[in-house]
Amino acid sequence: MSIALYPGSFDPITKGHLDIIERAARMYDKLIIGVLKNSIKDPLFTAAERVEMIKDVISHVKNTEVIAFDGLLIDFAHANNIKIIVRGLRAVTDFEYELQIAQTNKVLAPDIDTVFLTTSLQYSYLSSSIVKEIASYDGDISAFVNERTAFDIKKKMKDMR
Amino acid sequence: MSIALYPGSFDPITKGHLDIIERAARMYDKLIIGVLKNSIKDPLFTAAERVEMIKDVISHVKNTEVIAFDGLLIDFAHANNIKIIVRGLRAVTDFEYELQIAQTNKVLAPDIDTVFLTTSLQYSYLSSSIVKEIASYDGDISAFVNERTAFDIKKKMKDMR
Amino acid sequence: MSIALYPGSFDPITKGHLDIIERAARMYDKLIIGVLKNSIKDPLFTAAERVEMIKDVISHVKNTEVIAFDGLLIDFAHANNIKIIVRGLRAVTDFEYELQIAQTNKVLAPDIDTVFLTTSLQYSYLSSSIVKEIASYDGDISAFVNERTAFDIKKKMKDMR
Amino acid sequence: MSIALYPGSFDPITKGHLDIIERAARMYDKLIIGVLKNSIKDPLFTAAERVEMIKDVISHVKNTEVIAFDGLLIDFAHANNIKIIVRGLRAVTDFEYELQIAQTNKVLAPDIDTVFLTTSLQYSYLSSSIVKEIASYDGDISAFVNERTAFDIKKKMKDMR
Amino acid sequence: MSIALYPGSFDPITKGHLDIIERAARMYDKLIIGVLKNSIKDPLFTAAERVEMIKDVISHVKNTEVIAFDGLLIDFAHANNIKIIVRGLRAVTDFEYELQIAQTNKVLAPDIDTVFLTTSLQYSYLSSSIVKEIASYDGDISAFVNERTAFDIKKKMKDMR
Amino acid sequence: MSIALYPGSFDPITKGHLDIIERAARMYDKLIIGVLKNSIKDPLFTAAERVEMIKDVISHVKNTEVIAFDGLLIDFAHANNIKIIVRGLRAVTDFEYELQIAQTNKVLAPDIDTVFLTTSLQYSYLSSSIVKEIASYDGDISAFVNERTAFDIKKKMKDMR
Repeated sequence: MSIALYPGSFDPITKGHLDIIERAARMYDKLIIGVLKNSIKDPLFTAAERVEMIKDVISHVKNTEVIAFDGLLIDFAHANNIKIIVRGLRAVTDFEYELQIAQTNKVLAPDIDTVFLTTSLQYSYLSSSIVKEIASYDGDISAFVNERTAFDIKKKMKDMR
Repeated sequence: MSIALYPGSFDPITKGHLDIIERAARMYDKLIIGVLKNSIKDPLFTAAERVEMIKDVISHVKNTEVIAFDGLLIDFAHANNIKIIVRGLRAVTDFEYELQIAQTNKVLAPDIDTVFLTTSLQYSYLSSSIVKEIASYDGDISAFVNERTAFDIKKKMKDMR
Repeated sequence: MSIALYPGSFDPITKGHLDIIERAARMYDKLIIGVLKNSIKDPLFTAAERVEMIKDVISHVKNTEVIAFDGLLIDFAHANNIKIIVRGLRAVTDFEYELQIAQTNKVLAPDIDTVFLTTSLQYSYLSSSIVKEIASYDGDISAFVNERTAFDIKKKMKDMR
Repeated sequence: MSIALYPGSFDPITKGHLDIIERAARMYDKLIIGVLKNSIKDPLFTAAERVEMIKDVISHVKNTEVIAFDGLLIDFAHANNIKIIVRGLRAVTDFEYELQIAQTNKVLAPDIDTVFLTTSLQYSYLSSSIVKEIASYDGDISAFVNERTAFDIKKKMKDMR
Repeated sequence: MSIALYPGSFDPITKGHLDIIERAARMYDKLIIGVLKNSIKDPLFTAAERVEMIKDVISHVKNTEVIAFDGLLIDFAHANNIKIIVRGLRAVTDFEYELQIAQTNKVLAPDIDTVFLTTSLQYSYLSSSIVKEIASYDGDISAFVNERTAFDIKKKMKDMR
Repeated sequence: MSIALYPGSFDPITKGHLDIIERAARMYDKLIIGVLKNSIKDPLFTAAERVEMIKDVISHVKNTEVIAFDGLLIDFAHANNIKIIVRGLRAVTDFEYELQIAQTNKVLAPDIDTVFLTTSLQYSYLSSSIVKEIASYDGDISAFVNERTAFDIKKKMKDMR
């Protein structure tokens, strides 16, 4: 059985992430979405909240599982018998950073390989941070995240004021 | 009447910014320089100080106005009847970041368009942060900012010690 | 009156070109589409054919004119009293090539400036050559060019066999 | 059963290609190596020769098949029930070109997806054309292609003189 | 006598840095390794510790000297009669940042020139920060730094807990 | 004695090339300018003509020699006891191509190293082909090449008509 891992911060999950998840889930028997607990400073949502938000958004994609983790990506992969890491590529700066991570992981764990999917055009310049920035000014984020996620973001920002 | 907006932090305004302002002002009936109040952490100058410094530097460019603003760029543009945003492009990393912003704004406000001018060669690697870094070590910044701005930077840094 | 020039080979005009033309025409009083006669080797269409095809596609954009020309871009601009050149930017390799041309033209003709528009997302990876390649294998090009242009391409390719 | 396609010119197959083939073959039930008949001008080897050379080099990779084809990649994929295209990524210029092709194919055939593997570091700057250039000056190409391929290249170049 | 300067943070020195030092030392009569005291926030090691760690790693490269410094690079260069700055280049984002610094230094000190060496392939995606991140999760860093440096990193991180 | 090689087509030598030559000549005891005989298709000038044109332009740089050569760069370097290759870098696409060549040469000849100088800003977008294109339309090339070279180009183009 081919198991692939799609790791990320998902703070919050965007329509761009969902696009990658739907496409990767078609390619492998099982897709684990790995939520990095501490990858960014001052996340808007806790890791537990992000796991719940992702589960809600991807409930229609059956062969998936969402797990939060900490520590080295390759340790998590080994512990879960994962041989394939999936990453989305948007632009050139993404590409170089992703290459650096992929090549480093290859040295640390030669049995694990990384595959890249290119983000669909309409989401190619979308990022979680840009969504949060727009939301912080009460901008309309309905084109970038699903309805429930948009609601959660607005609520969280209101609570924080 | 064509009104264009040139937004930025301008902390402080450099000769590269001035070059873009002079050229954009020739292209449109009116050019508004929009000073982003909170776009960078720990600015050296307050938004009000930056507005004054820009006014001083561009006093010879008649069809301009300098306004500080907060919030989403497109909201400011709509409120001022602006249809064109002007941005300067220096290098590839600039280009990708600018594309991301421009494409996001296009989704949020399809009636507003972004045009890019390429920074003149002699200023193509100049940035406000590099000017501040050089000044912090008492380096000579006269090639990068005008005389009055250089004086203001030195004075501000002395006051902060 | 502000006159801008959008130069290119347009062999053939794509929906990406049309997108730039519609947007640029809103920004300036008049937009001249300049068809470069000899910019590519073995063009599929003659310059006269390309002029006709463009006129057909942009007939709804009123403040435009289509002219074929040869020689240096800046000489054509000077002869037509043009101060602004418009170019579309798709990706990083585009960007560097365009920068080279823009900077060279700046040295040759300091009175003329170049502005860049970024191609809309859905056309961001589209080029005339890719359209011709797909058409040469009888692929479906209706997503990339308008109906009449698609017909002309198929017909021309049939005639050439 | 998951079938993936690795298309290319392979004129000739390098150790970089072999690296991608070995890794992709581990990820999918079957990997078809598709040899593009007419993708480059003046190939050194005929498509039939290239097929034989690849078969020789990858004989130890069991779940593979080598097929020469002409026409649109997506037509070949559809005809062979292929849903996944595999491409190797070396550097930024590769990345942009590959993105352009992948996005175009996505418009033409939404059911087919492209995944990218990054070339292993020691082969990250290797290309078939550089191998041919070195060989044309009697340089040592043993670090870039396998023994049999090197022999075939030298022989072919001798025959052509 | 040709004296060159290789400046950096070296927090800590990696095998990639050592590769550049060994190659640059062959090209010039003397190579000064300049350790920037305050270039990064929250360094793991003090400047004095970094100097000692570098001396240990490069003890076999005779024509070198290791000096910590603060302030502008060009002031340090002038004070030490240095005309050549050496920098390692890994990838495109490196390249643009390095260009910016080199061009700025050229304006400030036209008598000093910068030369770039490209990092050897096996270290081309290595950075001090990635080493520290892996070490912080008890990952194996023996492929990236020498034995003594690895020991120092582990010890320092243990002390900080 | 340190001998460096600056290889290129120099068809024709531009002010950008001259800038690199002057700077590299200051760094090494001797600088050999190596003129590649057959690196480009349909050169405007013969290799012998290019050698003479370079000699004329660099007559004030004493520690230089101009030699035309054919074959592999590293074979020429070995035959002339050269350990250092000098290349100019203009932009990102240059950078990637140059990296590819440098890394390949490193595999073929580990004793030879490549150093890069960044082209001075005012020449950063200049190339021999753009000079030839402008000259072919009787454009003014005096900003890009020296007087004698400009004369030779105009004369050669006149002869070819």
